[in-house]
Amino acid sequence: MGNVRILEIKKSIYEDNNAEAEGLRHELRERGVFLINLMSSPGSGKTSSVLRVAERLGDETRIGVMEADIDSAVDAEAVAAAGIRAIQIHTDGMCHLDAGMTRQGIESPEMADCDLVILENVGNLVCPAEFDTGAAKNIMILSVPEGDDKPLKYPLMFSVADLLLINKIDCLGLFDFDLDAVCARARALNPGIAVIAVSAKTGEGFDAVADWIRDTRSEWSAS
Amino acid sequence: MGNVRILEIKKSIYEDNNAEAEGLRHELRERGVFLINLMSSPGSGKTSSVLRVAERLGDETRIGVMEADIDSAVDAEAVAAAGIRAIQIHTDGMCHLDAGMTRQGIESPEMADCDLVILENVGNLVCPAEFDTGAAKNIMILSVPEGDDKPLKYPLMFSVADLLLINKIDCLGLFDFDLDAVCARARALNPGIAVIAVSAKTGEGFDAVADWIRDTRSEWSAS
Repeated sequence: MGNVRILEIKKSIYEDNNAEAEGLRHELRERGVFLINLMSSPGSGKTSSVLRVAERLGDETRIGVMEADIDSAVDAEAVAAAGIRAIQIHTDGMCHLDAGMTRQGIESPEMADCDLVILENVGNLVCPAEFDTGAAKNIMILSVPEGDDKPLKYPLMFSVADLLLINKIDCLGLFDFDLDAVCARARALNPGIAVIAVSAKTGEGFDAVADWIRDTRSEWSAS
Repeated sequence: MGNVRILEIKKSIYEDNNAEAEGLRHELRERGVFLINLMSSPGSGKTSSVLRVAERLGDETRIGVMEADIDSAVDAEAVAAAGIRAIQIHTDGMCHLDAGMTRQGIESPEMADCDLVILENVGNLVCPAEFDTGAAKNIMILSVPEGDDKPLKYPLMFSVADLLLINKIDCLGLFDFDLDAVCARARALNPGIAVIAVSAKTGEGFDAVADWIRDTRSEWSAS
């Protein structure tokens, strides 16, 4: 406990978030920093998934994790306890991060020498989808216990995600969850979305996630 | 499918939501309508819980259910299929309902002769907690797979709830979830909160929920 810094960010002053996000994305590309914006409902397994990714990519890249929450520092402490560079961001009550808020996090000293930064957004399937953070890629998690109807109810989130992780796949038999149906519903909204079934508990599927991040980052670097 | 009406509500025009909520609460009391605002993360089991409550109270009261979502009508259709008066509210992209939006739902013909109305708010642990809907009581659901740290991260939601349902309790052994810890964390924020462990899948705990609603409503009627 108490081994991470808490950054109390302020609401963004920028009226045009899209322009601010494009500017941040451009700056990060110039600096060679690949920023991933990770979004999901509360309790879908964002922090556990970050740990699984860091296990696989930590030796080949300098990973930093920005944990955004309204209160507490439990997620950043969990990440720091695994030896990963982490900062806890408190969002001043806000239900999402925009590009200006993301910039405040990424300019913190903790993230200064990182070249792969994962922003764990506030747990929320609605508002974070509406605000471009300036990230190179968006990853979202849907966990099996949440149900397979979520693309029908929260279409924007599935529309803005580049990669959909179906987490807690080890529980598939215990819940009424049709994996094919959720993939079809997500692809109806977003034909280009990649989908990987994972278990942050067992590690299943995270080699494929690490490959997706490597490949996507290579394309991003070359483009 | 298609057996419920979808009400496309507009963003509220009221600047002072608290005053609007107090006004609506007063009106509903005059009319003898007990309004419950049900809140949780996406996929915590709000609709399944509504069905379990309706099974127990449907013979003694005229129940109406207002299902709020950004898109789709799957929840209202599920409720209507169980023979319960239901309307689907589409929130015009909004991540919560305020009192003006709730009023638009409750003034729909479908809810006209109901004396117990359950508003299933948008699945979101952040924004709905910030807006008083005018309901007599707030019920929130936290499901076991979401984890026991949620009161630390989303304190306002736990602070405004009168009753906390811990759902999917049939899965307690499968997840790292400390029931005593979550109760202690919720009560540290809100000493008066009632807590009932339930399973909307098996029905466990819903007799106690029905009793809580009966008792709370009797107190409300007498006060």
